[in-house]
Amino acid sequence: MTYKKLDEKDIDFLVSLCGTKRVFSGKEVPEIYSRDELSMVRSYPEVVVEVLTTEEVSQIMKYAYDNNIPVTPRGQGTGLVGGSVALYGGIMLSTVRMNKILELDDENLTITVEPGVLLMELSAYVERHDFLYPPDPGEKSATIGGNISTNAGGMRAVKYGVTRDYVRGLEVVLPHGEVIQLGGKNVKNSSGYSLKELIVGSEGTLGFVTKAILRLLPLPKKALSLLIPFSDLGQAIETVPKIIKSKSIPTAVEFMEREVILAAEEFLGKKFPDTSADAYLLLTFDGNSNEELEKAYERIAHICLDAGAHDVYISNTPERQQSIWSARGAFLEAIKASTTEMDECDVVVPRNKIAEFVKFSRGLQDKLNVRIQSFGHAGDGNLHIYVLRDTLAKEEWENKLEAAMQSMYDKAAELGGQVSGEHGIGHAKQPYLACSLGTEHIGLLRNIKKTFDPKNILNPGKVC
Amino acid sequence: MTYKKLDEKDIDFLVSLCGTKRVFSGKEVPEIYSRDELSMVRSYPEVVVEVLTTEEVSQIMKYAYDNNIPVTPRGQGTGLVGGSVALYGGIMLSTVRMNKILELDDENLTITVEPGVLLMELSAYVERHDFLYPPDPGEKSATIGGNISTNAGGMRAVKYGVTRDYVRGLEVVLPHGEVIQLGGKNVKNSSGYSLKELIVGSEGTLGFVTKAILRLLPLPKKALSLLIPFSDLGQAIETVPKIIKSKSIPTAVEFMEREVILAAEEFLGKKFPDTSADAYLLLTFDGNSNEELEKAYERIAHICLDAGAHDVYISNTPERQQSIWSARGAFLEAIKASTTEMDECDVVVPRNKIAEFVKFSRGLQDKLNVRIQSFGHAGDGNLHIYVLRDTLAKEEWENKLEAAMQSMYDKAAELGGQVSGEHGIGHAKQPYLACSLGTEHIGLLRNIKKTFDPKNILNPGKVC
Repeated sequence: MTYKKLDEKDIDFLVSLCGTKRVFSGKEVPEIYSRDELSMVRSYPEVVVEVLTTEEVSQIMKYAYDNNIPVTPRGQGTGLVGGSVALYGGIMLSTVRMNKILELDDENLTITVEPGVLLMELSAYVERHDFLYPPDPGEKSATIGGNISTNAGGMRAVKYGVTRDYVRGLEVVLPHGEVIQLGGKNVKNSSGYSLKELIVGSEGTLGFVTKAILRLLPLPKKALSLLIPFSDLGQAIETVPKIIKSKSIPTAVEFMEREVILAAEEFLGKKFPDTSADAYLLLTFDGNSNEELEKAYERIAHICLDAGAHDVYISNTPERQQSIWSARGAFLEAIKASTTEMDECDVVVPRNKIAEFVKFSRGLQDKLNVRIQSFGHAGDGNLHIYVLRDTLAKEEWENKLEAAMQSMYDKAAELGGQVSGEHGIGHAKQPYLACSLGTEHIGLLRNIKKTFDPKNILNPGKVC
Repeated sequence: MTYKKLDEKDIDFLVSLCGTKRVFSGKEVPEIYSRDELSMVRSYPEVVVEVLTTEEVSQIMKYAYDNNIPVTPRGQGTGLVGGSVALYGGIMLSTVRMNKILELDDENLTITVEPGVLLMELSAYVERHDFLYPPDPGEKSATIGGNISTNAGGMRAVKYGVTRDYVRGLEVVLPHGEVIQLGGKNVKNSSGYSLKELIVGSEGTLGFVTKAILRLLPLPKKALSLLIPFSDLGQAIETVPKIIKSKSIPTAVEFMEREVILAAEEFLGKKFPDTSADAYLLLTFDGNSNEELEKAYERIAHICLDAGAHDVYISNTPERQQSIWSARGAFLEAIKASTTEMDECDVVVPRNKIAEFVKFSRGLQDKLNVRIQSFGHAGDGNLHIYVLRDTLAKEEWENKLEAAMQSMYDKAAELGGQVSGEHGIGHAKQPYLACSLGTEHIGLLRNIKKTFDPKNILNPGKVC
């Protein structure tokens, strides 16, 4: 792919549209815009524009399309697979300033937001109005635009589903600059192929989301967490299908190991309530009365104790829950701080295959002699497995990483799983996606991309 | 579009594949296969094949593709917009015999079915195993394949969402005969553009669904209905946003008028519990304890009484609920039986715009001097409005019908609504969809269709 390199005239156009304070070019582009949170690929955009309005995005896209300039959308850059890295230079459109909450509609139970609103801002805002926005990815400083682009999942997917399930409507700027409205505040819709569903999870490659109408739920009045220690991870995870089978649906079921918890304690400088066991399940329940919660968790506590749990710690005050969940929220950062470099595998497998997958990935650690750590969403089958470089030399690291990744993606496919549960494909996971989907399927994705973006100018080099 | 007409060689091929007992050609094709439940368009397929396996579908699709023969998928033909009518003749693939429930997986809370399983069979089967399949369209004798093709909604969408929200995985035969697997038993998935979401609601125009993995919920232990009489429909419907705003989420909120109830009484030969009022809201609640239900419905009962409801009838036995809901289930048939011919408008609008839309459609009745009846899903904004021919002469009927439909679709657009909430576009509603979406949007749909089906042989003349 060859694109036009930006010249003075192009920069002048952008400045004429957005002024000098929101346009950074050449050496003014901060280092942070050359990468995301994890992926190893780095590349600078030629210019970064902090857009403010749909109209600006539309005019810039049209200009870029007419002039064959690549455009990379970017939120807070918290991605892990290089999805927001400007591989071919060009224009980066940052949504950081497009961060207004536009309307909370309590008759339709929707909130309308700009894409740069942070997940933590959105949650706090709706909770103040007694509503819940259920998707709950670990990274609370991600933008809602980013969450939509990867169809982010998070902890509460067990009970509430993922981002897709809460996107009612989108305003999207297409690669040639046209603006379309998809969905709306309507609860149902059977009016032609759902482009809204196609845009969700398309990682900014089909269109640029400039507005989202999100569905809200009434805020549950009560919540509590159970922290449940087990002798080892296998025992903990084998308990999960029994929990699901019990028909008491928890809000979240996370698994964690002592080693990861200790890393989080060190990273945060805060003590975790218990670190005596090798492995833990962490469950949350929510509902509208204490009786409702008690019924649900008592049954599950018994199941866990029958399955060999050492104890069941109930955490029913906001403070105690906060101490546990803040550790959980710091796992990724803590693991990252414990090594020199790392890469991640974000597979999802059917819930009754998690134990087998985790056992397999632990076996790889010994087989390949490379440190591997994991945590994740035991209740929905989505695992985060990190391969750590530590002191390995470059070539050895690359070989071991590739071997580990290939083995894990092969195993996931064997178990009926998928390449990514919630972090997306971006740049880093493309070969694994192509391999997992097969020629026919990936061919359809490529043709859909061509339909939206025949010149391949919007976020090129990603997904397919 | 010109297609090959079937000759003896083609029929021989189909018979060699499926035997004589499942292939009906020429005059053997029963009348029922020339139409669906409502739409005015009629056309016979040249041959009907009752397929049994994915392999058969794949081979027939490949043959049809190679020979330029149109193929129309059909379930039970309960559609209302001509989606399963073979407009260009060719081969009709009926799923009636592809009706096996393949697996109930209680560790992953999924059920795997063939497309010809009826909704009522599926519901009864999972309920026997203490599970709930939440989508609940009025037409229980529709196939699940048909439900997926229109993204059917139904009564319980207020609390549980629509068919799309319960489709975890699909096996799909593409127009040229290749078979692809989309999704699976996984709870999360961010692995490339979601073709599964594109197939759901595509009305059999992008691929032929041969298997579906559906998500189940634990069966709620308790349920009850409230039948709430009001002085008039306006008063009833204006109460709905207040109910939604109360943050007690009912499972279903239906509205109905005395005239429609009387038609259903006559059609079924059964008495409805009350017909003293002009208009009713019918609400259902479900949950796991009586206390939970009581809390929810008491609050809503007060809201309704404050808004002018005459009374609140509680129906908490299965028998009493059955008598109410069987009447509700017969509305469409009853209205149909009360006139000579009719057509339907299935718009969806934001929930706080329903009152305005219903008032508008009632105004049309007087303005155009044509009988119009309606009922529908007040809780999710999806209205079913029927324009009735009665004794009108052909030309007068056609003029009035067109004027009524155009006015209603224009009004829906003005209120931020969509052309179809759950019945789809099929053949009948194409002009309204094109008008509603605009050139850019409909162009994308057409190009997506071309990507999947460059020869336009799968269900041609539908959607876009």
